[in-house]
Amino acid sequence: MNEKARNYVDLFRKVKIASAATVDEQGRPQSRIINVMIASDEGMYIVTSKGKPFYKQLVDTGRVALSAMCPDCQSLKFTGKVKMVDKKWVDRVFEENPGMNEVYPGDTRYILDAFLIYEGSGEWFDLLNYPINRETFSYNASEEKAGFEIQKNCIGCGSCIPVCPQKCITEGEPYKIDPVHCLQCGACFEVCPAEAIKRLHP
Amino acid sequence: MNEKARNYVDLFRKVKIASAATVDEQGRPQSRIINVMIASDEGMYIVTSKGKPFYKQLVDTGRVALSAMCPDCQSLKFTGKVKMVDKKWVDRVFEENPGMNEVYPGDTRYILDAFLIYEGSGEWFDLLNYPINRETFSYNASEEKAGFEIQKNCIGCGSCIPVCPQKCITEGEPYKIDPVHCLQCGACFEVCPAEAIKRLHP
Repeated sequence: MNEKARNYVDLFRKVKIASAATVDEQGRPQSRIINVMIASDEGMYIVTSKGKPFYKQLVDTGRVALSAMCPDCQSLKFTGKVKMVDKKWVDRVFEENPGMNEVYPGDTRYILDAFLIYEGSGEWFDLLNYPINRETFSYNASEEKAGFEIQKNCIGCGSCIPVCPQKCITEGEPYKIDPVHCLQCGACFEVCPAEAIKRLHP
Repeated sequence: MNEKARNYVDLFRKVKIASAATVDEQGRPQSRIINVMIASDEGMYIVTSKGKPFYKQLVDTGRVALSAMCPDCQSLKFTGKVKMVDKKWVDRVFEENPGMNEVYPGDTRYILDAFLIYEGSGEWFDLLNYPINRETFSYNASEEKAGFEIQKNCIGCGSCIPVCPQKCITEGEPYKIDPVHCLQCGACFEVCPAEAIKRLHP
């Protein structure tokens, strides 16, 4: 895990309370509040118990998406892959999070399993300060492209400039969107008469 | 919307900052931090802009799951259906949330659309106080069953009592799980020698 990814994984661990989203057997999104229990160079560890729909969804799909917010770190999001790991990680989680003993006292902890989020990509996003800021990160996976990019067939008409809420497009050949400050709202894409703006995400 | 559901919808609005989960075109869970902009008897309103993957996922699937946490309300989760509504709701959102004008000044707001979460079901869950507490709610949809129930073929052996982390099973014919305090961990289900415990959720 590179330093940038490690920084964001540590932020998830610092925030601790995150939302974990999964897809259920009917293909519906499901989400609940969880704790990110451990963050290491291998990824993030979470625990859940065998009887829960969350557990079944993790096992069935091998995927989870996290998002979290805090006053210091603003908004974090992540989507990645998950696998069940040895029960010794349940013990590690209880060592590092002793409050868990109140919820699952004694040996009752072993109805839990630990899951490692071993790869994925995410984004940090600060909507609270202007201009807005964003940065992508990933570990054991490639960063996912998002937002919009102005291509060479830009005719320099300037239609995109006034519609940009964050004023992050600058003149040039071609015009350029500053991806760090872009809301990814798509307003420029909608108005471009030359169809010169490419959507980078699906 | 009944009073109980209204209460929880108001909580989402009070918390404001929630995670919104969707399913992307590859079937993966995706999640990001959003604001619940308006809560009314019709449901919850959210906004997003046309260029975002979130927008496309809402339109393509018609579904969203929310979860939120706050010191007072503990943990809330919800999954339901969503539909795009008239642009006048974008104006309503900006009236009630004037801070939105800093992100989308002037007419740039109309790259946003408003979506109404018009039905769904959810759960409030308090893991911070013991015994833990939970309550389900729904609007324009039936409440979803979750957890475990002991059936008539219970043999009264008592195997389930010591494995329950929250001690919420009481003797009787059959034994009974208190659903309000149940972690839904499934420990009782795993040990029952009579297979008398039914899993209520998929």
